[in-house]
Amino acid sequence: MKVIRSVKEMTATSRELRNAGKITALVPTMGYFHEGHLSLMDKARELADKVIVSLFVNPIQFGPTEDLATYPRDEKRDLSLAQMRGVDYMFIPTAGEMYGSGFQTSIEVSQLSKGLCGASRPGHFRGVATVVAKLFNITRPHKAIFGQKDFQQLLVIKRMVKDLNMDVEIISHPIVREPDGLAMSSRNTYLSFEERKSALSLHSALKLAEHMIESGQNNSGIVAGKIEEHIEAHPHTKIDYVFIGDPDTLEPVNEIKAPVVIALAVFVGSTRLIDNAVVYP
Amino acid sequence: MKVIRSVKEMTATSRELRNAGKITALVPTMGYFHEGHLSLMDKARELADKVIVSLFVNPIQFGPTEDLATYPRDEKRDLSLAQMRGVDYMFIPTAGEMYGSGFQTSIEVSQLSKGLCGASRPGHFRGVATVVAKLFNITRPHKAIFGQKDFQQLLVIKRMVKDLNMDVEIISHPIVREPDGLAMSSRNTYLSFEERKSALSLHSALKLAEHMIESGQNNSGIVAGKIEEHIEAHPHTKIDYVFIGDPDTLEPVNEIKAPVVIALAVFVGSTRLIDNAVVYP
Repeated sequence: MKVIRSVKEMTATSRELRNAGKITALVPTMGYFHEGHLSLMDKARELADKVIVSLFVNPIQFGPTEDLATYPRDEKRDLSLAQMRGVDYMFIPTAGEMYGSGFQTSIEVSQLSKGLCGASRPGHFRGVATVVAKLFNITRPHKAIFGQKDFQQLLVIKRMVKDLNMDVEIISHPIVREPDGLAMSSRNTYLSFEERKSALSLHSALKLAEHMIESGQNNSGIVAGKIEEHIEAHPHTKIDYVFIGDPDTLEPVNEIKAPVVIALAVFVGSTRLIDNAVVYP
Repeated sequence: MKVIRSVKEMTATSRELRNAGKITALVPTMGYFHEGHLSLMDKARELADKVIVSLFVNPIQFGPTEDLATYPRDEKRDLSLAQMRGVDYMFIPTAGEMYGSGFQTSIEVSQLSKGLCGASRPGHFRGVATVVAKLFNITRPHKAIFGQKDFQQLLVIKRMVKDLNMDVEIISHPIVREPDGLAMSSRNTYLSFEERKSALSLHSALKLAEHMIESGQNNSGIVAGKIEEHIEAHPHTKIDYVFIGDPDTLEPVNEIKAPVVIALAVFVGSTRLIDNAVVYP
């Protein structure tokens, strides 16, 4: 596995890979790998000749009061995990490499970025879309793999790729969960023992909602109410949003007649967690 | 010369050209070709194996009160001129091909888009940056040729390419003028006989300013005042802006100690014309 830290070298390498006719896949990450990341790497390994994993804690997708400074990092461990998973290139640029002097360009995917996490985290998806476009241009992958845990992010990226005619196939991969159902997240490391127990309420609320909808409940307000009640019954929780809507456009849905995405963001202690499920009535 | 109207076919063609190892150059245009456009095609012909010219009157770079509907068009003549200049591919998409259902992504180059034409035409450079990124992704050129007449546009595009790590070389080409000095523009066709005479004041004002600066005048306010006075002495003129500033950052300059760009936008009758010159003290 080769570790590349300069944009120039990564660009030259991806050009060589293209010229050599290799099929490449990118897994963009912010590091501190868990099984979720590793499953994306496995998927990439399956689909491509050469697997590139980027590790970059992207400052422009964090708000001023968010956890950029404390975001968990362990590069040595990440390198060893990636190597074990058969990754060919790890691209680990510095913020200075990515955002040089005079940097001033941004990409906005307007409607899809508005609600949900976009409402709670202004500018977040602008930062995500911009860095992903940069990573695509630097690494030139045929395919890029994103997890469904960041459901809104996945839609934003797919829309950007379509709207800007980017020549890359976006492949989504299911949420990977702990044995007890908690969606894997680098931020789970922030949770205390007590908080970790309350964090399970996100997944159990989704299961509850799924059961209600499958049993014929088609009023999204009633389902959302039950979700809130269930989560709030757990200590240390504070709901950011409970969203039920169209899984393609993220328009809210009142009467559930077609598949919906149920997306949650909940503070558990001071840690903001997200989870989601697509549910078929 | 091959005429391509679908994004899908152009994408497939540019991929084939890349795979065949051809060096390609793109000349993005809005059509109604004059010698300025043709000189860009000649430059492209000189630098590349295959020349792609795009012809697209891009709706999203026009303001609601601007001349999108009346912008001059003559596709038949354009095709014949391009063919004579040895162009290999003309890409002529419809607006529907470029901006399909649900389109919502835009690219903003913030500081450089603020002043000058960006101040007079809100959203203009967002529309330009977005369509140029799309054209780059669809045609995948090694090089792209832009005229210096749209000086601010050139800086915006160069900045976008650098900031987003786009793998394309931006090549700029000098302003092409009529024998009497008027900068070539598709919009010159709007001018009446009388307006055409007044339109010459843009170029003569630039020559006057150049002479002042070369003779030691280093106060940009005095130079700008002389430019305004000169232009306003011509009938049917209304100044939009007279700008003197740094040719890289477009920061205004008070004391002229280094090269400056002098950029003008002037309404002559109802036609908005621009011109510029880089002047060395």
